[in-house]
Amino acid sequence: MASIFTKIINDEIPCYKIAETDEFFAFLDINPNAKGHTLCIPKQEVDKLFDLDEATYNGLMQFSRQIAKAIEIAIPCNRVGLTVIGLEVPHAHVHLIPLNAMEDAKFGKKESLTPEEFQAVADAIKAAL
Amino acid sequence: MASIFTKIINDEIPCYKIAETDEFFAFLDINPNAKGHTLCIPKQEVDKLFDLDEATYNGLMQFSRQIAKAIEIAIPCNRVGLTVIGLEVPHAHVHLIPLNAMEDAKFGKKESLTPEEFQAVADAIKAAL
Repeated sequence: MASIFTKIINDEIPCYKIAETDEFFAFLDINPNAKGHTLCIPKQEVDKLFDLDEATYNGLMQFSRQIAKAIEIAIPCNRVGLTVIGLEVPHAHVHLIPLNAMEDAKFGKKESLTPEEFQAVADAIKAAL
Repeated sequence: MASIFTKIINDEIPCYKIAETDEFFAFLDINPNAKGHTLCIPKQEVDKLFDLDEATYNGLMQFSRQIAKAIEIAIPCNRVGLTVIGLEVPHAHVHLIPLNAMEDAKFGKKESLTPEEFQAVADAIKAAL
């Protein structure tokens, strides 16, 4: 069965998209730790980060770096943190989270945004790419 | 002033070392979230991950992948998670954390190991490299 992220890539589930290449896809986390929290994923559906083949892993990390640099421009923060856990959705994904305090890195601390606020955040990051 | 990590690289502060290349260094986190929690760092002292030049960032991520694969062999776990926060030590560092539950990814949950246990963990990861 396709993962929820594959459904997002295939436009079966809506998202606030940031960027897409032949191999990778970036979109806003709908339950963000902080405004600007973005997920970067390979289109290839592999559960565990370190099971990705070397080229796909390297490509995902390079893609994530480009997106993170745009987030750092678009969203006021001390820095962007990067986290891969992966126990909840079996499709490898890189969390990019604007951080100002250790608390922002903790999953479970959620920010509430309206659809208009999500769209504004996505637009700001895309403009900084 | 040299960061605490630069002092570890220079052998001014002891550590349970896992691996070293010309550019990168890996050692056990002395306050681990879980047994096998390892830090991978560039020898170059740069505070923020995304301020590393592209080649050093890519190299750090590739080095981290090699270490993570050894941890996955040496330490029983569901998978190894990867996290970069960086608000506490101003020298970019990748946390590799053996995960079995979301709780293991939370900083603050600490595991207590004796020096002998730390050394055994380091030896097991090195043997899997």
